[in-house]
Amino acid sequence: MSLFEKHNATLSKAIEALHNRTFFAAYPEHPSPTVYGETADADGQAKFKAALGNKFSELKQTGADGWAGQEESPYLQEPLNISYPVFSVQTLISNSKNTFHTWRSVKADDRAGMLIESLERIKARFFEIAYATMHTTGQGYMMAFQASGPHAADRALEAIAAGYEELQRFPASTLWDKPMGKFNIQLNKEWRAVPKGISVVIGCSTFPTWNSVTGIYGSLITGNPVIVKPHPGAILPIAIVVAEIQKVLTENNLDANICQLAVDTYDKMITKELAEHPDVKLIDFTGNAVFGSYLEALPGKTVFTEKTGVNSVILDSVQDIDKVAANLAFSVNLYSGQMCTAPQNFYIPESGIKTPNGVVSFDEFAQKFVDNINSLVDNPKAGPFVLGAVQSKKTSERVAEAGNLPGKVWLKSRSFENPMFKNARVATPVVIEVDASKKDIYSKELFGPIALLIKTKDTDQSVQLAQEMAMQHGAISCGAYTTDADTKEKIADAMALAATPVSFNLTGGIYMNQNAAFSDFHVTGGNPSGNASFTNPEYVVKRFTWVGHREPALG
Amino acid sequence: MSLFEKHNATLSKAIEALHNRTFFAAYPEHPSPTVYGETADADGQAKFKAALGNKFSELKQTGADGWAGQEESPYLQEPLNISYPVFSVQTLISNSKNTFHTWRSVKADDRAGMLIESLERIKARFFEIAYATMHTTGQGYMMAFQASGPHAADRALEAIAAGYEELQRFPASTLWDKPMGKFNIQLNKEWRAVPKGISVVIGCSTFPTWNSVTGIYGSLITGNPVIVKPHPGAILPIAIVVAEIQKVLTENNLDANICQLAVDTYDKMITKELAEHPDVKLIDFTGNAVFGSYLEALPGKTVFTEKTGVNSVILDSVQDIDKVAANLAFSVNLYSGQMCTAPQNFYIPESGIKTPNGVVSFDEFAQKFVDNINSLVDNPKAGPFVLGAVQSKKTSERVAEAGNLPGKVWLKSRSFENPMFKNARVATPVVIEVDASKKDIYSKELFGPIALLIKTKDTDQSVQLAQEMAMQHGAISCGAYTTDADTKEKIADAMALAATPVSFNLTGGIYMNQNAAFSDFHVTGGNPSGNASFTNPEYVVKRFTWVGHREPALG
Repeated sequence: MSLFEKHNATLSKAIEALHNRTFFAAYPEHPSPTVYGETADADGQAKFKAALGNKFSELKQTGADGWAGQEESPYLQEPLNISYPVFSVQTLISNSKNTFHTWRSVKADDRAGMLIESLERIKARFFEIAYATMHTTGQGYMMAFQASGPHAADRALEAIAAGYEELQRFPASTLWDKPMGKFNIQLNKEWRAVPKGISVVIGCSTFPTWNSVTGIYGSLITGNPVIVKPHPGAILPIAIVVAEIQKVLTENNLDANICQLAVDTYDKMITKELAEHPDVKLIDFTGNAVFGSYLEALPGKTVFTEKTGVNSVILDSVQDIDKVAANLAFSVNLYSGQMCTAPQNFYIPESGIKTPNGVVSFDEFAQKFVDNINSLVDNPKAGPFVLGAVQSKKTSERVAEAGNLPGKVWLKSRSFENPMFKNARVATPVVIEVDASKKDIYSKELFGPIALLIKTKDTDQSVQLAQEMAMQHGAISCGAYTTDADTKEKIADAMALAATPVSFNLTGGIYMNQNAAFSDFHVTGGNPSGNASFTNPEYVVKRFTWVGHREPALG
Repeated sequence: MSLFEKHNATLSKAIEALHNRTFFAAYPEHPSPTVYGETADADGQAKFKAALGNKFSELKQTGADGWAGQEESPYLQEPLNISYPVFSVQTLISNSKNTFHTWRSVKADDRAGMLIESLERIKARFFEIAYATMHTTGQGYMMAFQASGPHAADRALEAIAAGYEELQRFPASTLWDKPMGKFNIQLNKEWRAVPKGISVVIGCSTFPTWNSVTGIYGSLITGNPVIVKPHPGAILPIAIVVAEIQKVLTENNLDANICQLAVDTYDKMITKELAEHPDVKLIDFTGNAVFGSYLEALPGKTVFTEKTGVNSVILDSVQDIDKVAANLAFSVNLYSGQMCTAPQNFYIPESGIKTPNGVVSFDEFAQKFVDNINSLVDNPKAGPFVLGAVQSKKTSERVAEAGNLPGKVWLKSRSFENPMFKNARVATPVVIEVDASKKDIYSKELFGPIALLIKTKDTDQSVQLAQEMAMQHGAISCGAYTTDADTKEKIADAMALAATPVSFNLTGGIYMNQNAAFSDFHVTGGNPSGNASFTNPEYVVKRFTWVGHREPALG
């Protein structure tokens, strides 16, 4: 049985899910022993520990110049001392070029089979990847498992499915038979999906696999060799992914260099040199707006970006103010606000929030919000695991500075003790009241656990500001609370025009930070937060070119 | 019956044809009296003549500043003296903005119905458009009828079909039901296709409707208001199209400003001001490489270009050298080489072209090619109608200069008499022999009836040069002649990598210049000749953004 036959049912289900957009997950998100094996967690942790201080020697790519690695654990605030082979840009490009013609000649069926097989192999390492993610990004255990493991694998499968479907969109060949009156002109026509060329996928420090696998698998399924350039601070999780892809490739007598890892160090970043290389045709990037915009402007490249955004919450009217405060408090605590989907600007009318039991004033809501944040932080069985650690020192500094913003500080950022990691770099959310007139304060992304409560004239102003922020500075998510149908449609339409998905009236165990594969478009591509979406058709069709040849049929 | 119901069968057939890519045409290409009516031709000509010297008063758009028009007939070398209402950029943008929210709220079904209805109205004016096209572009009567009439309408229908299909790709709403073990999370999700905003379609002087209608209809079907900026030298054909769209819009109680015509004059071109306006989000352009590249680099715009290219013919081996010479002679004579798909560089091995009757030397082929060009030019019943007239004085000058290129002149450009238009601006093809080593001569588009016979070492060098030209300077079409299967695949693969469609072994009544709607991708978007294709999915999906909202289902 070929790998395509082995995985064809999964592929078909994924393509179906892409269209009906109902719930579908190929990889169970719960780290359950019954699903993943009784010893899977302990084994994964042991493997992660064994990697510390050692060379990562699983890669099969060729031509390394030496070894390097500068990852640090936000939980331990100590270096991991893992070293990876490093390669010159010249070697990476040359390796990649050498594989281009081989990889593009592999049939789409076989590419799909191998790529899904690699996800199955990665599944066996979800726990190891989880610990690697914790100790590079600072994510809590559960998020590290889910986001870097099953959710990332589902997103990868989604990209494979989307690409595979587009490759099948037009027939390989057909007879074109045009009646001309007395005779027919008959042409044999054929269409080829031609991959664009070398693809560079640039990773970020907070979601090293989830944000990168769509680009990696989207480029690979469409026939492009890939160079994965991780953030120097978060290599190990994606290194494991690349290693498993390489193993499947070599088992199938293909060159491991079809998918290479390009590790660099803070003192010698190779991203620009890679991106500007004329042989690089595709670039995927997650990260800051300045670098993202620089990449988007490079001539002759097809560039997919996810940059920064200013995510808003619009509070108009609610059924149950306590459930809303609890839900939003969780959203800002989750991974200490280090998600690109985390809310930052909370727009609250000066007249307060309508509820079935009367109006809740601005101050009353602010207090409830702060109380809920505190109660989660101070719950030793939940707080440390929800908040995790702060990936970068810069984020900690930004949170400290936020305390000096001109406005009432409803809640100061503080420390807390993680029972398992005494030295963890932590910061709880800072909550500040800002008047709507002080636009310069809230018109930018303040990455990290920083929440601004913005007092507006009314909900119309709230909507207008949320839309304006999204249109001018980008937004990846929006939360809105209203019990009024007309207001809801007004928000839905205004934010749709700003290309921002809205989560309405979320309470309980679902949060505006979360995006599901096969159902949610992550980043729409329609506002400054990025030009690309996981995963609409554009995300894959731009990775190859349709070329049609024709010849008279022999009569 | 709604317009959607009226045209639904046509729309369905068009969508089917997009997928199976067999022959399909909704608009008969032959100007037959039995199809279009006994008096259709005479009536169309009379209407065109009535337009001369008068104001074009059919447009229903509002806010004109005055009247202007500078078209000249290449057949008469006299001004048409037709004037059109002119509008300030501010008025055009403001009109367009005012219609945006109305047009985007019209259901896709209704948009499709109205747009196909407009094509039916345009069909009734195909002959009038044909004469308008002749006397602005210089095309011969048959090409003017076909390209500006039925072929353009088919391309427009193709864009409507492609856009409509993409708008239906995802469900309007669904219930997302995620099992969580003890309970399920249920979310109502909905997806909106949000148009990007004002679309500007910039026309060219040689194919004023064919090259513009895909952008116009592609933007309109996806909900964007359109401003059509024709070339100042070729307005009337597309003015009739816009007028018919406006009539259908107003009959359906919609604002005519949803699709505006933006006429300008050579002394006061408004293209840059329009393109750079921050409210303009979509730009379609056909024209020169410098301006196209400037547009592509504008930040914050989605830009679709068709620019210049260097089209090659590779001659390796043939079944019948006379049929090949005749076919290629027709291709260079057709509309005096003023098609973006016309061949320019003919690569011929110094050892000659293999045939079943022995090798035909370079010189023998050159002579046959020249003889065939002459015999077509000198055939008074065919030549003048195939060659038509030269649209621009610059093209005539370029042809004259080409005679001075360093290389053997196999055929000089000359004049001929058009029996119907004594003053027509005409030029027959110039044919020059160039050695493959003189790359600077043939590494650029020489627009017009200029053919270069390039002597190569062998077919491998021919293929390498054709690929290099396409990759570096762009190519929209390629002709190739070989009877050897391996050589054929080598050419097919090399040119596919250069994103150039190849027409193999064409003889008889089909030419490499021709591209068919629903079957051929016109321009692939994969080389410097343009970044867009008529019509692959990218051509329409980039005109709108998918945005998904969600809310807990009421339990």
